[in-house]
Amino acid sequence: MLALLALLAPPPPYSPEIAARLVGGALTDGVAYVRAAQLTDGIGARLSGSAGAEAAVQWALQRFREDGLSVRAEPVKVPHWVRGEERAEVLPARGRSGHSLAVTALGGSPATPVGGVTAEVIEVRSLAELHALAGKARGKLIFFDHSMSTPGGKTGYGEASPLRNHGPAEAAKLGAAGALVRSLATASLRDPHTGATTFEDGAPQVPAAAISVEDAALLHRLLQQGPVQVRLALGCRTLPDVDSANVVADVPGREKPEEVVLLAAHLDSWDLAQGAIDDAAGVAVVMEAARLIARLPQRPRRTVRAVLFMNEENGLAGGKAYAQAHASEAERHVAALESDAGAGRPLSIGLRAGEGAQALLAPWLAPLETLGAADFGGESGGADIGPLAAFRVPFVGVQQDVSRYFDYHHSAADTLDKIVPADLAQTAAAVAWVAYALAEMPQVLPRPAAPAARAAGGQK
Amino acid sequence: MLALLALLAPPPPYSPEIAARLVGGALTDGVAYVRAAQLTDGIGARLSGSAGAEAAVQWALQRFREDGLSVRAEPVKVPHWVRGEERAEVLPARGRSGHSLAVTALGGSPATPVGGVTAEVIEVRSLAELHALAGKARGKLIFFDHSMSTPGGKTGYGEASPLRNHGPAEAAKLGAAGALVRSLATASLRDPHTGATTFEDGAPQVPAAAISVEDAALLHRLLQQGPVQVRLALGCRTLPDVDSANVVADVPGREKPEEVVLLAAHLDSWDLAQGAIDDAAGVAVVMEAARLIARLPQRPRRTVRAVLFMNEENGLAGGKAYAQAHASEAERHVAALESDAGAGRPLSIGLRAGEGAQALLAPWLAPLETLGAADFGGESGGADIGPLAAFRVPFVGVQQDVSRYFDYHHSAADTLDKIVPADLAQTAAAVAWVAYALAEMPQVLPRPAAPAARAAGGQK
Repeated sequence: MLALLALLAPPPPYSPEIAARLVGGALTDGVAYVRAAQLTDGIGARLSGSAGAEAAVQWALQRFREDGLSVRAEPVKVPHWVRGEERAEVLPARGRSGHSLAVTALGGSPATPVGGVTAEVIEVRSLAELHALAGKARGKLIFFDHSMSTPGGKTGYGEASPLRNHGPAEAAKLGAAGALVRSLATASLRDPHTGATTFEDGAPQVPAAAISVEDAALLHRLLQQGPVQVRLALGCRTLPDVDSANVVADVPGREKPEEVVLLAAHLDSWDLAQGAIDDAAGVAVVMEAARLIARLPQRPRRTVRAVLFMNEENGLAGGKAYAQAHASEAERHVAALESDAGAGRPLSIGLRAGEGAQALLAPWLAPLETLGAADFGGESGGADIGPLAAFRVPFVGVQQDVSRYFDYHHSAADTLDKIVPADLAQTAAAVAWVAYALAEMPQVLPRPAAPAARAAGGQK
Repeated sequence: MLALLALLAPPPPYSPEIAARLVGGALTDGVAYVRAAQLTDGIGARLSGSAGAEAAVQWALQRFREDGLSVRAEPVKVPHWVRGEERAEVLPARGRSGHSLAVTALGGSPATPVGGVTAEVIEVRSLAELHALAGKARGKLIFFDHSMSTPGGKTGYGEASPLRNHGPAEAAKLGAAGALVRSLATASLRDPHTGATTFEDGAPQVPAAAISVEDAALLHRLLQQGPVQVRLALGCRTLPDVDSANVVADVPGREKPEEVVLLAAHLDSWDLAQGAIDDAAGVAVVMEAARLIARLPQRPRRTVRAVLFMNEENGLAGGKAYAQAHASEAERHVAALESDAGAGRPLSIGLRAGEGAQALLAPWLAPLETLGAADFGGESGGADIGPLAAFRVPFVGVQQDVSRYFDYHHSAADTLDKIVPADLAQTAAAVAWVAYALAEMPQVLPRPAAPAARAAGGQK
């Protein structure tokens, strides 16, 4: 009966042998975890401008060569921000002792004067509350105390991250002495989570640090009792820009080599840890997909291009440089997929494309059914590929389980042990197959209607 | 019908009015959480010998006086160990970079030489594996890599803690250069957990530090690949002993004031955080029980004595001093209960006493039924009351939910936010009622057959 049904069903539009080879290869003969380990245990932290970042570029070039891809380093000038001493404490007050605070500078923060800055703390929950302070913010430490924290649920990162990215700059415009931002974290054991904060050229800057969730709760409690003075000392600084690179590796298409399916991840990481889930995992997934596709007996119709971006974390110089350098062929980028959401197992396929895209892609997704990832759903996009939205490049995403992602993200706990090898292999299988499908299907996905660069950006 | 059953049932051996007053008082009009906040947010860390520990003694004396108890400070000489700089790193090796390690000195550790000690790491999983090394341990950093880690389940703390307590001393006897101990933790975000390590007088000592669970996993992985060199730098040191105190507060018995029901907790904490669950929670519970009993219109038959011990964490000087100073009345200590297992809700009543004790106490436990804590089960004992086992004092315990306890224990994350006020109030209610029952019941519990000091000791 099953055999009869199979005879009655239309044949799939793809080669079942190739599907088995790609998915099976990732699951039974994969090197994604080994590659993630090389990038973390072998190289370690990879903040833009650091020796680790440069080592990662060389490592990636070498691995892609070994995998038989056509690879090159494309120049990117990156910022070189370095962390220094970092300390903060609540000063003693009438009726209570002082407290040391667990803090870490936000990337891009200037240093405090030697000895630190000491000021009264004012708590706000939003940029609107900050702006309502107006002149009262002058000389104060602005404490951004949002409420992101939903273990296992919707994280609220998208809503809270503008406070970290733009809050300190807005506080600086009001004459504040500094900024403390509650860590953007869904779990905490007193570990602060860093991340970029942005000051426009020529605009005022203030020292800005993340504080742990526990210390944010402490400040909140103490502020119920009376004024709170905090001393913040940061030794971070920005050195001259450094020459670095995106690593770009092609599996040239057999029929339409000028049409490109782009697979993105980023080589750089924050400096507090090894950058395992952010984004050694994505690098390993993208490399694995390209490696498996390159090993096929016949290359797909279009070019599959793996791009390992530099400087995703604190400037997006790599993403901007790629879009600029490849503007003339951006119209021939038929799809882009960014892998920058950790090492969780695949859940669904996200799509940001023109009308009819789902119908085109759907018949190709059956090989992902047993992985539980054959349905459409969720977001697609990414910080590195964000600039390509201006060119109406369709974005495709392999959505992953991110329920623990913000427990570790941008913190000292982003270490290799957080990667479950089987989950990583499943995501690599899904990305390999989706990339192949996009490069092999007869038609290309219709392009989205309008560039919506903001909506297309990733969560960083 | 229910009224008829009630008429047929034997009357309870206790006054229902007093049960309602104690349990209801803790649940509706309690100050346990407020007291825990005063000890943590108000005073902060309280390691023996520190200003915080001294402030805690003064605070406790004042609070007990306000509560109308007969209170005194009993002298205890305590060690004064202070933390200094602490850093560790895996040195780079062929084919891989170096890594910084998240470490914290174990209490009692000596300092390293300035600049640290650099040595090859040897991994062991037990004291037996250490001893099997014999001469191979000389000059090495011994890495104790046990496997405690069962979130929400049995923690394994009792099995693993001897590695931390005695492993470094044993390594020192073999000529090791130092010791690294995997943190005794059931959850980790790269935060090391400290704790005491013990060197006998005159025996060799080595610098000893806890490393985070993640860093233990890193060392384990790197050791699979080849030799690993670590540099460990600790600035901790032991200063001269300091005069401190246990705080002892009585609600004198109305009929048999010479018979004592002892309620114990400890004022001191580790220095990495506020010591909220270890043991501000226990202090608050014991104070609350004593306060509620002292407010009754009629005091119970026997004396209820709250003892807030000093130096539970790194020496047990307070527990030893109390047992010595009160040896002559130890026979008249009819029960001892230690509250040093965090702030979780009450689950059951533990008993370590002579035959027939359960039968005597059982009829008194009905008021705890709706709290879910009226059944017997689990351990009883405690580090501070441990020395009283030599006098065959019956130990009674209000067992609590400790499923998250070792997530935070002895780490920087032991902060007030980990205390759920409702859970703390329920445990205070249970302890108040059990203490009252022990002080009011006509008979006393039969004493346990033999002193088993070791079994009676708490987990520290």
